[in-house]
Amino acid sequence: MKIFLKLKYDGSAYGGYQVQKNCPTIQKMLNEATASLFGYECDITGCSRTDSGVHAECFCATVAKKGESGLTTSIPVEKIPQALNVRLPDDIAVFSAEWVEDSFHARYGVKEKTYVYKIHNAPARDPFLRNRAWHIPKRFSDEAVAAADAAARLFCGKHDFSSYMAAGSKVVDTVREVKHASVKKEGDIITFTVTADGFLYNMVRIMCGTLVDVMEGARKPQDIPDITARADRRAAGRTAPAHGLYLYDVKY
Amino acid sequence: MKIFLKLKYDGSAYGGYQVQKNCPTIQKMLNEATASLFGYECDITGCSRTDSGVHAECFCATVAKKGESGLTTSIPVEKIPQALNVRLPDDIAVFSAEWVEDSFHARYGVKEKTYVYKIHNAPARDPFLRNRAWHIPKRFSDEAVAAADAAARLFCGKHDFSSYMAAGSKVVDTVREVKHASVKKEGDIITFTVTADGFLYNMVRIMCGTLVDVMEGARKPQDIPDITARADRRAAGRTAPAHGLYLYDVKY
Repeated sequence: MKIFLKLKYDGSAYGGYQVQKNCPTIQKMLNEATASLFGYECDITGCSRTDSGVHAECFCATVAKKGESGLTTSIPVEKIPQALNVRLPDDIAVFSAEWVEDSFHARYGVKEKTYVYKIHNAPARDPFLRNRAWHIPKRFSDEAVAAADAAARLFCGKHDFSSYMAAGSKVVDTVREVKHASVKKEGDIITFTVTADGFLYNMVRIMCGTLVDVMEGARKPQDIPDITARADRRAAGRTAPAHGLYLYDVKY
Repeated sequence: MKIFLKLKYDGSAYGGYQVQKNCPTIQKMLNEATASLFGYECDITGCSRTDSGVHAECFCATVAKKGESGLTTSIPVEKIPQALNVRLPDDIAVFSAEWVEDSFHARYGVKEKTYVYKIHNAPARDPFLRNRAWHIPKRFSDEAVAAADAAARLFCGKHDFSSYMAAGSKVVDTVREVKHASVKKEGDIITFTVTADGFLYNMVRIMCGTLVDVMEGARKPQDIPDITARADRRAAGRTAPAHGLYLYDVKY
């Protein structure tokens, strides 16, 4: 058996999820906290590799003893979140821990993930949203937001999404199934929500950049199927900045 | 004529509003930004002296040329927020600027202020609320929150509030009029909102600490009039930490 964790983090101070040299990462912090708690080095397997500056409302990871398929501990599983949290910096917090089978894989076992992208759409920037939403000062009309919502819905379905994949990515199978995609506005926050069985590198951020083109009037919702069909990164819009992106939910 | 500014700030990185030696403060940042924009040193007068770590959703201040009662500038007033924001760190943002008479005083002219205090009441801490709400892990029941609300309402009226003033404060007139006070819960956030014609040093934080005693069952709502009547700091509860406090609104 191994431990399955759910955590939240503010990614602002980190070079993304995965361990890198010379850079604090979420995985590195989890490595240190679990080694301190369990008394031995652990292997942490995360559900995805979020980029530098990207946040998580729900990130999933498993913990096993380094080089082994499971771990043993006398700590009651329900005490593990708090015991890890005292060992983690305050921009990372574990909110759930449970035992799972050794065969469970935090990354390959993912059935679908939901990302949320937040745009702060108001003339003046908001200090409480710095690093947490993409600030676009020029206000979009309700019609523009409705057009972006209509465009987002055209992402749905099983498609080759390589138009929305960062150039240089080495992934071969670029077909994914988007199960839900929508845009809504609440107050000054425009939220793009997208659920899929998997995501290509920078896919949500490039989709979001393309939707901003729609809100700015530079593209129309009905352009989306063409952009997708071209299977060419140059067909889509800019890459929205990392700091508006949140991994929001993960289903196994 | 002088310039009247409204601004928001995340106070986490600052030693409060007022200029101090060896410590970044909001006022210091405004001094630097206005000197850079107008080309001469300015006097900034703030509506209150928020403490280290305290935030503002709406802080008011006036800007005059140093040693003078007003200022002259060829910059259109509607351009001033953005022109200052590019000169301010991203945890401070000006969202409004207008001309006011030289006789207007940002501090003495205040008719009432509203503060909001946020408690994050959930077992696991939230990385997105660190430095922005007081985390109390043990969940309070709806009845406990209702009791705190009933207690808060007993702050209302014109009273000597010296029980809720930090020991050592040199203020002589400790009578203030609380016009509104309430507690409500939305999701995991318990919010204490209080409006008064003025506040003593640490008054909102001590009131909030006393309300937490009520939620914990250590005090009853009907204890509040007695605590107030004793006019003794020792009668009230602990001082809630600074980082949950927000200056929310100011009326002139």
